[in-house]
Amino acid sequence: MKQEATCEQELIAIRDSLEILGGKWKLRIMRHLNNHITETNTFKKIQREVEGISAKMLSKELQDLETNLLITRTVMNTRPITVNYAITEYGKSVFPVTETLVQWGLNHRQKIK
Amino acid sequence: MKQEATCEQELIAIRDSLEILGGKWKLRIMRHLNNHITETNTFKKIQREVEGISAKMLSKELQDLETNLLITRTVMNTRPITVNYAITEYGKSVFPVTETLVQWGLNHRQKIK
Repeated sequence: MKQEATCEQELIAIRDSLEILGGKWKLRIMRHLNNHITETNTFKKIQREVEGISAKMLSKELQDLETNLLITRTVMNTRPITVNYAITEYGKSVFPVTETLVQWGLNHRQKIK
Repeated sequence: MKQEATCEQELIAIRDSLEILGGKWKLRIMRHLNNHITETNTFKKIQREVEGISAKMLSKELQDLETNLLITRTVMNTRPITVNYAITEYGKSVFPVTETLVQWGLNHRQKIK
């Protein structure tokens, strides 16, 4: 359902989107969780596979993503206890947006060559 | 035409898009030029109507937008000389992208209320 908004509201909405989509790590983490959706994605596994991210940064980003309902954090009843991070259906809603950004960016590079 | 890209290229493409779409002023200036497309948009007029932007910032942003082929700068043969800024057809290609960001952002606000 297309929502009408004033100019100011639109600019705030864009800023909201960019806060989530524009960061260096959030998108990589969501893309990683989406690509490995059938696996158990623990903190250590994500940190190992999302190249270059520090434990501190990963912890903060996972917290942000969870607060924004884009991923879930589930404590598994295993010994020792493991915690699984998974992308939510809502979390997958970012990919059409990022795809638009990718196509515009790729096209722009060609244009200004 | 949808372009295929590696993960790294996609992230670079997103960063390219955000460099242009993510800034505080570029989008407002392009939106303003698009809304006033039938008028002569001089530097002074744009600065007056894009609330809060300084002359120095406007000058830099107009330069960036021109370099990125999103607007044109035309010296008018008037006395005194006037310079007209106009959005290009290519410049209008940002609006479907920003519309996607607006809708996602508006929807996100509802979601996390």
